[in-house]
Amino acid sequence: MEFRSDMTVHLIKHAAEDADVVFAARVSTQGGMSRYNESSKGDAGLINFLMRDRHGSPFEHANFTFYIEAPIFVVREFMRHRAGWSYNEESGRYKELAPVFYKPADGRPLRQVGKPGAYKYVAGDYKQKVTIKGDIERISTEAYTTYKRLLDMDVAREVARMVLPVNLYTSFYATCNARSLMHFLSLRTHDESSTFPSFPQREIEMVAEKMEDYLHYYMPETWRAFQRNGRVAP
Amino acid sequence: MEFRSDMTVHLIKHAAEDADVVFAARVSTQGGMSRYNESSKGDAGLINFLMRDRHGSPFEHANFTFYIEAPIFVVREFMRHRAGWSYNEESGRYKELAPVFYKPADGRPLRQVGKPGAYKYVAGDYKQKVTIKGDIERISTEAYTTYKRLLDMDVAREVARMVLPVNLYTSFYATCNARSLMHFLSLRTHDESSTFPSFPQREIEMVAEKMEDYLHYYMPETWRAFQRNGRVAP
Amino acid sequence: MEFRSDMTVHLIKHAAEDADVVFAARVSTQGGMSRYNESSKGDAGLINFLMRDRHGSPFEHANFTFYIEAPIFVVREFMRHRAGWSYNEESGRYKELAPVFYKPADGRPLRQVGKPGAYKYVAGDYKQKVTIKGDIERISTEAYTTYKRLLDMDVAREVARMVLPVNLYTSFYATCNARSLMHFLSLRTHDESSTFPSFPQREIEMVAEKMEDYLHYYMPETWRAFQRNGRVAP
Amino acid sequence: MEFRSDMTVHLIKHAAEDADVVFAARVSTQGGMSRYNESSKGDAGLINFLMRDRHGSPFEHANFTFYIEAPIFVVREFMRHRAGWSYNEESGRYKELAPVFYKPADGRPLRQVGKPGAYKYVAGDYKQKVTIKGDIERISTEAYTTYKRLLDMDVAREVARMVLPVNLYTSFYATCNARSLMHFLSLRTHDESSTFPSFPQREIEMVAEKMEDYLHYYMPETWRAFQRNGRVAP
Repeated sequence: MEFRSDMTVHLIKHAAEDADVVFAARVSTQGGMSRYNESSKGDAGLINFLMRDRHGSPFEHANFTFYIEAPIFVVREFMRHRAGWSYNEESGRYKELAPVFYKPADGRPLRQVGKPGAYKYVAGDYKQKVTIKGDIERISTEAYTTYKRLLDMDVAREVARMVLPVNLYTSFYATCNARSLMHFLSLRTHDESSTFPSFPQREIEMVAEKMEDYLHYYMPETWRAFQRNGRVAP
Repeated sequence: MEFRSDMTVHLIKHAAEDADVVFAARVSTQGGMSRYNESSKGDAGLINFLMRDRHGSPFEHANFTFYIEAPIFVVREFMRHRAGWSYNEESGRYKELAPVFYKPADGRPLRQVGKPGAYKYVAGDYKQKVTIKGDIERISTEAYTTYKRLLDMDVAREVARMVLPVNLYTSFYATCNARSLMHFLSLRTHDESSTFPSFPQREIEMVAEKMEDYLHYYMPETWRAFQRNGRVAP
Repeated sequence: MEFRSDMTVHLIKHAAEDADVVFAARVSTQGGMSRYNESSKGDAGLINFLMRDRHGSPFEHANFTFYIEAPIFVVREFMRHRAGWSYNEESGRYKELAPVFYKPADGRPLRQVGKPGAYKYVAGDYKQKVTIKGDIERISTEAYTTYKRLLDMDVAREVARMVLPVNLYTSFYATCNARSLMHFLSLRTHDESSTFPSFPQREIEMVAEKMEDYLHYYMPETWRAFQRNGRVAP
Repeated sequence: MEFRSDMTVHLIKHAAEDADVVFAARVSTQGGMSRYNESSKGDAGLINFLMRDRHGSPFEHANFTFYIEAPIFVVREFMRHRAGWSYNEESGRYKELAPVFYKPADGRPLRQVGKPGAYKYVAGDYKQKVTIKGDIERISTEAYTTYKRLLDMDVAREVARMVLPVNLYTSFYATCNARSLMHFLSLRTHDESSTFPSFPQREIEMVAEKMEDYLHYYMPETWRAFQRNGRVAP
């Protein structure tokens, strides 16, 4: 049994740079085939204009493929993002699932205050912290032990897995483009400077933050324009 | 605690009849606005031609909205269907989840034979049947009791739910069109007469069969053409 | 030869009312199957909250099917809208195209001022008006006469049509949902009160305005919330 | 004035190789992060299995970005492909369009025989060939001369372009994945060995054939499996 409190996000490959946005946008106004050149690589002004005026399509030609490990309850939210996303996930029908479970880290806020749509979360007290950890470890262990015993009895994997809790880790590949990624980030991170603030569950935000690092690194002008324009996806 | 072995599928509303396919197809060949009339309602020949030659777009103008109750492990597979589908699901962050869990019915095959991609399932023996039921009831009850106790301790719903197993029922609305519905049916039902046979998990097939009944009832010529042409979605 | 300056938009069918949004949203917070009832029909507050906080998915369960006649240059822009749209269009390969062409009405601004992304258009002078009308009539007539002569010589329709100009009318069916329709309206109408103002070509705006009338009529609370929240599609 | 009979298709960039399919498929059955290695690169058997059993999602992680020049009547058909495609096209509102027009090459069949859905095309006679070329040159030239005169009179580009015929070339960027590309190829090429033969217009097939060359070159096992399994997109 392994208990983790973190998320894995690896960038498997990418065909994504700021110049992709620029060359795609320029076909509208210039026609013909823009070449990659120094001037296009640094065209922060054009990228900011596109972001501000919500011309989203030029951002669709830059692609990222991620490998992600996260608990089922996170992946359930993740895969609701459909437009511009492709997925392949580990299957509980085709393979035996590994005993890796999520448990909140010490600092994870445990209490929910405020109202629907704008919940805030505050630190749990000592008793809550101890109880939640103990409960998660106990239920996860019992469920997994049961799962294994059912497999040993030759029960089908797709049946045995029914007892496993949603804090079980799963792994998947996700391919998206810069536009669909920014849309995801706008909904799955909380940033006070956003024009339309979102209130995501902390665990999916942990995944989103790691993905945002890659966007920031490989498409710095795009990321800056996103940030500067209220984190509204174009 | 409630244990169920069935799936709920209600048709909430529909704007779907065979004539929708016919009027959309006729705009290609006749232009102008076809009227609903008796002849168009019965145009089985045109519908069969469209299905056979895989002209899929005319089937997209007929819409269905379903209300569905199914366990999480089924809904996870369901929501992988993206193109032509819209969803709204019960939220474990916004509401307390009810203690309703899936357990396999007596006749549910429990053993998996064959190889990946074409698994077959055969009846379990007496010991398997007794064990799986007992285990599911036990784990579900323990998990839900723990969930409730955490809520009583004022732990946030989004944290407490982490202990719940994937056989918990959830509810959602799904809107699709006749084309996306047939695509779903081709992958989530097993029919020996299919050109490309699929091997879905029995529980999602139970949902799919109920959805197919509605397609059959409201769009009989479309359904017949689907069946006659190897259940390949156009 | 027929010359028109207007657009045709007929609502063929709809399964769309404000209550569709409400019942879909309530499944998140209440679970179970909301019934259509008086209170849900008038829930303007919930609809406004969803719009403001950009919870878009509940708006996807309301569907509209339109029959539209517009010139090719308009339909080219229209069909770039992909997510949540289905189309079937008159085919120049399968049928002989009718001699119906667009020419700008008297009041149509003819001169473009300002800069890319925010063009404004102002009235043409007398000479421009006369010339553009004469030119459009002349080219359209010559092109169509040539098209017909080629057809009379038994040239394939798909080849003969190559000479026809983009002001030729075409007809198509379009099915969308309330969310994809609002996204279209936000980009294809110009409204000073918009949070993100758009600068569409006047001819597609004429189509969009007629579509908006239907949204306003059949989903008044949704339309009001859209208007009140800066015409940003949720 | 320039008259062309060919299509331009350049591969601008790609993140596409057979190994992309393999690593995405293996996450289902093995979990974890497959590494690129020699064995995965040559796994023709797995790719063929995925194609045959229509497991399409692993093919979505391989991306291509093309630059294409084609006449408007071709691009109108092209952009009907929506799922898994992103576009940016030259704009007749933002730039002056260049005088480049399509005219059929000598060998292009000019007469249409057979019935809707399965048209065949046969060679034109001498008179047809001479007439169609003369007519296309004449109408294109008159239309473009008129377009330029209107621009010289300070008429807005978006108005002046209304006189231009659909054989005018336009340019665009298109990004797709291997799955959406195969779907396009299955509908826009004609191959006698196809399980579901299509009857595309020759001009879009010319574009499709060039795109297929790139698929063949960069993903040879994927292309072979596509060909071997009746050119049915998975």
